[in-house]
Amino acid sequence: MSKNETTGAGSIVASLSRCGVTACFANPGTSEMHLVAALDKVPSIRSVLCLFEGVASGAADGFGRMTDRPAAVLLHLGPGYANAAANLHNARRAHTPVVVIIGDHATSHRQYDAPLASDIRSLTSSTCRWTGSIETAAAGAELVQRSVEESMTAERGVAALLLPADSAWTLTDIIGPSHDFVAPTLALVPDDRIDAVRNALNNAINPAILLGGHALREDALAIAGSLAASGIRIFGETFPARQTRGAAVFSPERLPYSGPQARDALLAHDLLVTVEAADPVAFFAYPSEEGRLAPAGMRILNLASCGEDGTAALAGLGCAGVIEAGKQIDETFDPAARPTPLSAGKILARLMPVGSIVSDDAVTASGPLWAGTENSETHEWMTLTGGAIGQGLPLAIGAAVACPGRKVIALTGDGAGMYNPQSLWTMMREKLDIVVLVFANNAYRILEYEYERTGAGKLTSAHDMFDLSGPTIDWVSIARGFGMRGTLCKNNGELSGAIERAMKETGPCLIEISIE
Amino acid sequence: MSKNETTGAGSIVASLSRCGVTACFANPGTSEMHLVAALDKVPSIRSVLCLFEGVASGAADGFGRMTDRPAAVLLHLGPGYANAAANLHNARRAHTPVVVIIGDHATSHRQYDAPLASDIRSLTSSTCRWTGSIETAAAGAELVQRSVEESMTAERGVAALLLPADSAWTLTDIIGPSHDFVAPTLALVPDDRIDAVRNALNNAINPAILLGGHALREDALAIAGSLAASGIRIFGETFPARQTRGAAVFSPERLPYSGPQARDALLAHDLLVTVEAADPVAFFAYPSEEGRLAPAGMRILNLASCGEDGTAALAGLGCAGVIEAGKQIDETFDPAARPTPLSAGKILARLMPVGSIVSDDAVTASGPLWAGTENSETHEWMTLTGGAIGQGLPLAIGAAVACPGRKVIALTGDGAGMYNPQSLWTMMREKLDIVVLVFANNAYRILEYEYERTGAGKLTSAHDMFDLSGPTIDWVSIARGFGMRGTLCKNNGELSGAIERAMKETGPCLIEISIE
Repeated sequence: MSKNETTGAGSIVASLSRCGVTACFANPGTSEMHLVAALDKVPSIRSVLCLFEGVASGAADGFGRMTDRPAAVLLHLGPGYANAAANLHNARRAHTPVVVIIGDHATSHRQYDAPLASDIRSLTSSTCRWTGSIETAAAGAELVQRSVEESMTAERGVAALLLPADSAWTLTDIIGPSHDFVAPTLALVPDDRIDAVRNALNNAINPAILLGGHALREDALAIAGSLAASGIRIFGETFPARQTRGAAVFSPERLPYSGPQARDALLAHDLLVTVEAADPVAFFAYPSEEGRLAPAGMRILNLASCGEDGTAALAGLGCAGVIEAGKQIDETFDPAARPTPLSAGKILARLMPVGSIVSDDAVTASGPLWAGTENSETHEWMTLTGGAIGQGLPLAIGAAVACPGRKVIALTGDGAGMYNPQSLWTMMREKLDIVVLVFANNAYRILEYEYERTGAGKLTSAHDMFDLSGPTIDWVSIARGFGMRGTLCKNNGELSGAIERAMKETGPCLIEISIE
Repeated sequence: MSKNETTGAGSIVASLSRCGVTACFANPGTSEMHLVAALDKVPSIRSVLCLFEGVASGAADGFGRMTDRPAAVLLHLGPGYANAAANLHNARRAHTPVVVIIGDHATSHRQYDAPLASDIRSLTSSTCRWTGSIETAAAGAELVQRSVEESMTAERGVAALLLPADSAWTLTDIIGPSHDFVAPTLALVPDDRIDAVRNALNNAINPAILLGGHALREDALAIAGSLAASGIRIFGETFPARQTRGAAVFSPERLPYSGPQARDALLAHDLLVTVEAADPVAFFAYPSEEGRLAPAGMRILNLASCGEDGTAALAGLGCAGVIEAGKQIDETFDPAARPTPLSAGKILARLMPVGSIVSDDAVTASGPLWAGTENSETHEWMTLTGGAIGQGLPLAIGAAVACPGRKVIALTGDGAGMYNPQSLWTMMREKLDIVVLVFANNAYRILEYEYERTGAGKLTSAHDMFDLSGPTIDWVSIARGFGMRGTLCKNNGELSGAIERAMKETGPCLIEISIE
C-alpha cells in the first residue's frame, strides 16, 4: 500500500466521518470484515455492537431523531437487512435520516448464487428512499456522501448502500467526492403559501391546525401556543417521531388513535391546516368505517410539508395570542395500590429529570403514560411512527448514544419488549443511561381491543392468540441474564421507590411493572 | 350469514385444511383478526403463537423439513414479513415448502398510505417463489390451494399470500378451487440421463458423487453406501437441510466449509456427479481465492436436480457394492475437563434416543458436534442452509410440532442464540420436547476466524466487534425468565449428567455449556 492508498473500506469510513457521521450500529459478518477493520481505526465514529439487526436499525432511528443526523447501520447481506427492515420502516415513517451499509458478496462472487445471496435491492426498495451500490473501491467516498445527502434531503429517511466485499478490500487512492459535504437544511415555505393559509385561518369559522414532524418541537410549540391563545385549536399527530413536552411547554391535543374518537375531535372544524403532517387517516381499516378521519366538508390546507421549515412558516402566520400559563395535573397516587399506566405516568412526571428522553413502545399503556407525564420537567417523547412494534428498546439505545448525560426512559410492554430483548445486552455493553420500564399485563392487550373492534366474533379456544400468561415472562430474570439490575414492582410505593433510585443512579436498569 | 356463507377468512382456513396444512405459526396483528377467529374454529390446524416473526418462519421451515408439507405462517403487513424474512431465506435455500399469509390493509384503505403500509411484494419477491394476493373473499380458497402447490412443486420453497383485511372479513359462499388438491410429488429422472451418468461413472478415473436435498435421507444413503463400496467417493453437501445419520447409516464425507479444504477434497477427481445438489461454490469470496470449488478440469454431471427424485435415480445407477459395517468412534471423555464441542458431541452420541432430531445453529461448535455424534442412534440433522444465523431455536420448534414423541435437540451458540431468544417462550407454551444446548464461548468466534481469512489486518481496539463477554450472557437466567429449567455445565461430568436427565424427561429445558 503506498502512502496515498487505503482500502475501499478505509475510504468509506473516512467519508462517513467527513459527512458528520459519529455512530455506527453494527451486526457485521464475514463480508464486512474490512469495514470493521476500518471503523476500528477511526475514533470519531463510535461503533456499537448489536446482537440482532433490528436493534441496530432501531438505534439508528433513535439517534437520528435526537440529532437530525444519520447514524450508520452496518448489516450482513440480504438476511441482515431483512432483520433490520421493520425498524427501518418506523424510521421511514418518522422521516429519520439513516444510512444503511449492507455488506454483500464480492462482485466476482455474484455469479455463483452462494447460500447467502439474494436480491437485496428488492428488499431495500420497499423502505429506502435511495439505494446505491459501491461497485469499485474508488466509488465509495462519493457514494457515501450521496447517501448521507439522500438521507437528509426533502422528506428525509433511509438511504442504503450495498458494499460488495471486494470494493471494501481493494486499494484505492481515495477518489473523494466532487464537492464538499454541506448538511442539507429545511426548505423555506414560500410567502404566498403562508399568506394563503393566514387568509384561510382568518376566514374560517372554526379552524384547527395539525402539527407533525419538527413542528412538534419546542420552538414550534411556543408559536403554536400563541395561535391556540388566539382561538385556533391545535392538534398534534397521533404518533410523533419526537415531541417536546412538559409543564413549561404548550401541549397540542394529540389526535386520538381510535378512528371514531379522532373523527369526533375533527368534526366541528371547517378548516384543518397541516404542518409537516399528513392528512389524517385511520391506522387500520374496520368494517363499515371510513378510512379518512376528516369530515367530508372540511377544507385541508398544507402549510409545510415534511422537509420544509414548518416552524418558520408558523411564525410567519404572525398571530400573537397570550400563551397559557403552566399546567398542573394531579400527581396523587395510592402507594399500596397496584400500579396502572396512569399512576406510573404520574410517578414518572414527578421524578423525570429535565432533558429526559422517552422512547414509548408501550402500546396500550402508552396513552395513560402520555397523559400522566404532561406536567413533568421538559422532555422529549418519541413514539412508534410506523406501527412496527418492538422498536422501544433499540430506539432508547440510539437516543442514549446521541445524548450522553441525558436520562433515557424506555417504555415497553411484555409483548412489545419481546421483539428485541437482546437490546438489553447493548445497553449494558455501552453502559447507557437507560431506565427500561416494562408494563407487564401478560397479554397482547392491544389485540384484544382490536379484535373487538373488527367484530370478528367470539373466540372459543381458551389457549388463545392474545394471552402471554403461559408462561409468564419474568423480566427481572431476563435482565439478570444480561447482567442488568432488575426490580419487580407490584404496587405504586415500590414503583415510586424504584424509579427514584433509577433516576439518581446512572447506567441501565429494568423495572417490571405488574399491571392488570 | 346464510348457511352457505362464511367469511373469506373461514374459506381460506378451510382450504388450508383441505390442502393438508396442519400447523400455523403466527404473530398476528389487527388486520389478521378474522383469520385468527377462523383458525380458532378449525381444530385440524394447530395454531402456535410466536412472540417474534422470525420464530414463526423458522418454525415453519423446521416443520416443512420434517414433513415435506408446508406449515402456514401468519404475519402482519410488511414489517411482520420483514421480521420473518431472514429465516425464510434459510427455508428457500433448504427448499422447504412454506406458505406465508401476510395480512394487509383492506383494499379500500390502500389509497391512504397509512403508517403500516409498504410495498410488500417488493419484499416477498426477494425470497418467495410465488406471491399472490387475495383481492376478494371469493378468491381465497383457490389461491390458498395454488400457494400450497407452488410451495411443493419443482424446487419447492416459500409461497406468499397477501390477504387484505376486507377479503378476510367479507362473506362468501366459498367459491372453492377448480380441482381437488393432489400433493405434488418428486419428478422422475429420465432414463437417458441416468444411463449417461452411469456411463460417465464407469469411464471416469476417479469419480465422486455429491449428495444434497432428499438424497441425504435414509433410503438414498443406503444406495450411496453401496456405490461407495464399489469405489466411488461420496460427498454430502456442506449445509444439508436434513440428513439422516447414525452408526447404522452410511456417512458421506461432508464437503468442508473452508474453501481451501473443499478444493483439496475435490482435487483428485475427474468427475463429480451432483444429486439434488448445486455445483459447489465457496460460501464467501476471499481476496485471491477462487469462488468455484471444483478444479478446472473436473467434469460435473447433474443426475437429479432439486425437485427430482434423486433417490430413485441413484438406485437406477445399479451399483451393488457391499455396504460397510457399522462404525465405531471414540466415546471417551474426561469428566473433570472443561467441555468442548467434540466432548459434547461424544456425550450426546451416547445419550440421544433413536429418532432424535437435531437443529444445528452452533456455528463454530457445529463441526466437532457433527463429528462426535456420527455413531449415535439413527437421527435427523438439520443445518443452517442459507447462512442467516439464528434459526436454530425456531427450527427446533417446528420439528417438535411436526414430530410429537421424538426428542428434538437444538444446538446453538451464545451469538446465534441471541437472534431469536423469544423462541424459548413458545417452547414452554407448547410444552415441546426440546433440549436447547447453548455453546457459550462469549464471542462471535466465527468472525474471529473469518476476520483472519479475509486478511483485514490487526484490530487495535480492545472493545472489539467479536467479543460478547461484556456483559457475559447468563443463559440459565434467561431460561428462567421464560419459566424454563436451565443448567450451567462447566465440566464434562456435569454435562453428561444434565444431558442424561434431559433425555429421560420430556418438555423443554436449556443447558448452557461453558466452552473456550
